Amino acid sequence: MSDNEHDTDGQVTEAQRAALRLANVDEADRNAALRSIADAIHEHEEEVLAANAEDVTEAEAMLERGEYTQALVDRLKLDASKLDDIAGMVESVAEQDDPLGATLSARELDEGLELYRVAVPIGVIATVFESRPDALVQIAALALKSGNAVILKGGSEANESNRTLYRIIREATDGSFETLPAGWAQLIEAHEEVDRLLELDDKVDLVMPRGSSEFVSYIQDNTQIPVLGHTEGVCHVYVDEEADLSMAEDVAFDAKVQYPAVCNAVETLLVNESVASEFLPGLVERYEAAGVELRGDAATREIVDIGEATEADWRTEYGDLELSIKLVSDVYDAIEHVNANGSKHTESILTENAETAEAFMTGIDAASVFHNASTRFADGYRYGLGAEVGISTGKIHARGPVGLEGLTTYKYYLEGDGHLVATYAGEDALPFTHRDLDTDWTPGRRAGE
Amino acid sequence: MSDNEHDTDGQVTEAQRAALRLANVDEADRNAALRSIADAIHEHEEEVLAANAEDVTEAEAMLERGEYTQALVDRLKLDASKLDDIAGMVESVAEQDDPLGATLSARELDEGLELYRVAVPIGVIATVFESRPDALVQIAALALKSGNAVILKGGSEANESNRTLYRIIREATDGSFETLPAGWAQLIEAHEEVDRLLELDDKVDLVMPRGSSEFVSYIQDNTQIPVLGHTEGVCHVYVDEEADLSMAEDVAFDAKVQYPAVCNAVETLLVNESVASEFLPGLVERYEAAGVELRGDAATREIVDIGEATEADWRTEYGDLELSIKLVSDVYDAIEHVNANGSKHTESILTENAETAEAFMTGIDAASVFHNASTRFADGYRYGLGAEVGISTGKIHARGPVGLEGLTTYKYYLEGDGHLVATYAGEDALPFTHRDLDTDWTPGRRAGE
Repeated sequence: MSDNEHDTDGQVTEAQRAALRLANVDEADRNAALRSIADAIHEHEEEVLAANAEDVTEAEAMLERGEYTQALVDRLKLDASKLDDIAGMVESVAEQDDPLGATLSARELDEGLELYRVAVPIGVIATVFESRPDALVQIAALALKSGNAVILKGGSEANESNRTLYRIIREATDGSFETLPAGWAQLIEAHEEVDRLLELDDKVDLVMPRGSSEFVSYIQDNTQIPVLGHTEGVCHVYVDEEADLSMAEDVAFDAKVQYPAVCNAVETLLVNESVASEFLPGLVERYEAAGVELRGDAATREIVDIGEATEADWRTEYGDLELSIKLVSDVYDAIEHVNANGSKHTESILTENAETAEAFMTGIDAASVFHNASTRFADGYRYGLGAEVGISTGKIHARGPVGLEGLTTYKYYLEGDGHLVATYAGEDALPFTHRDLDTDWTPGRRAGE
Repeated sequence: MSDNEHDTDGQVTEAQRAALRLANVDEADRNAALRSIADAIHEHEEEVLAANAEDVTEAEAMLERGEYTQALVDRLKLDASKLDDIAGMVESVAEQDDPLGATLSARELDEGLELYRVAVPIGVIATVFESRPDALVQIAALALKSGNAVILKGGSEANESNRTLYRIIREATDGSFETLPAGWAQLIEAHEEVDRLLELDDKVDLVMPRGSSEFVSYIQDNTQIPVLGHTEGVCHVYVDEEADLSMAEDVAFDAKVQYPAVCNAVETLLVNESVASEFLPGLVERYEAAGVELRGDAATREIVDIGEATEADWRTEYGDLELSIKLVSDVYDAIEHVNANGSKHTESILTENAETAEAFMTGIDAASVFHNASTRFADGYRYGLGAEVGISTGKIHARGPVGLEGLTTYKYYLEGDGHLVATYAGEDALPFTHRDLDTDWTPGRRAGE
């Protein structure tokens, strides 16, 4: 039976079943399966590229008819070097620390009654992604490493590439690892099945969309499944009156120019009005030499000759060599602007005054708030999280750059010796000891051993 | 201007503004405000009871017309002793450890570039609750302790009680604490505003419903705001062939009879078929003497003379002195039954065999899995979590009994000295050190200090 004969509900149910078994596959087997996937991608390189070429030919025809953009075609295209990178990414996921099994806390409730909180997989993770076939491999690898079953739904423009990569992943893992449950990964192809998938909030535990802001927004607005992701990064750099202006110029430049297309690049520069005339001319010259298109508020434009910013500019993620500049009266004015216009992603203050830094860092509601550093540091790799699962601007479950820990939850294990609640209730109730333990839960342990 | 003149959107916006300031109110001020609320509840006891009497009179009229149930009227009714308990609860929340400000992790990214992950409030929490006016006070207290603004929406049957308690809370905190922002608590009265509130998923960070299973289900199905709560507890006790049968009898009895109305009481008893005829007769006699109504599958009814269980029984939370019994062939049969029929709340195995215990505990997907202990231990107080915020059967953010930690998230603080990402990119890229630190972030600290 081919996977096309399943319906989405059936596939998700199969993934749920597989998830229960996958949760107990040990680290060595999960890593061996990941290495087997990486090897298989190398071995089947020609096959993947041939399938991808079919997709690209079709997409280029759509491009000519004006139905696809060049950017979409570019994202779709694979080559031998990109495939090497993808296989290398899978290998690096295998090398990460195991996110499962750690005892997160341990507490004696009473003599012989011990409570353990242990990291376990979430269950069933779904991904819905546009164009890039590497998203399929990346999310499958992260899910397998963290013991989660995964539902993969790519865009129709990458159907052949996705189908081939999925088959390679399944063939590389089915059978060769006795403990790995078949069905841990499921590919959904039919476009109309996306909406059905997004309805299955009682069966799918987390969805990780990959694509444009509009695409992620669409997913967020059309499902009750928790979404791990972010739609936009409207990040700010605030240059305080007590900033080291030379440092501030370098940081403001790095935050915009080093890589403007990403979500942690700065979009609006806030400058304390008392240092603006000293600070701005040099920076503006440097920005303009790098090709940055600048727009400012009226006060800024009295100092430097740049375009006019509209209200919309303060909430725009340019994702390009564009920047808006606004003067503020003090750090509180800056905080107010950021809290009103930012996207809770990453904000940075430049100041030599520790109290001012404190006011900014504690006063702003964002996943990451920096002092004297470029916003571009907000990234799972730079943070040392290992594999980056995504960046979340939500506040529930995981916030900011998210590592494999974001694909885990916990379970309480209580080890007793026939303990009854009646013993701890009523007139002769015994008290609890509630004493922290430094022991790990080991499967099958008995309390007090 | 009275609060009635606000619309829900305006109140939520006011709460958002207050949340930004409340996040930085120090522990002593938050605790002083809580104690002030507790005192005010004592002082205004007569006023609260008078308002509650109005609600009760109205509700009793509705009861006579068959529109309300006796249970609703009972939940609604306050008396001096209940008010004392409520004030005592607020005081105990003040005495809890501060859930805010702790450095959860610290890492050097490079020399002078230090990343801190610090516990902060979530932002705006909403509660929607039925009948019990104590839910209003409890959630307001938990929110204030954890630095979150709160939106309170009670049922119309408790309008007078809620309005009075809300006014007392506001009067006890507004003004007397300079740092506490007015607007941190908002009461919504109009029934039609519930749906509006549930739509505000971009402004409300978490909703905590309090009420019946049906009520919590309604909230979950009608909002994209993350919900902290649970709808039902279909908990199991499995008696293995290697159980200490005397211990098993006591635990199975405690799990049902000690307090049958709560979500962590057992609903289905699974018994290994090889010990059923030895185990069941004595337990059934004890259950029946305690007034428990029993229903069993065919195999069980060959051993003991009890009613017949239907398929629906396996998924029913009786919440009462009722229990279903099923024989299983081994631990894997038990695991399969639980994973298919349970509500991921709390499950317990009785066995002296550590490997069998391991199979059950790791094989079942539930928030709490116990070995030789009553399911009734699944509770924030017994777990030593301090104040119980709720019990979650979801897997995202918080699972099982949830303490004040469940009302917090984290924020990354990065302290640098003008660090640029360009330094760590390209051909001459410097490596990161990614070294764990054991220092706490202190507001305004400079990296390396």
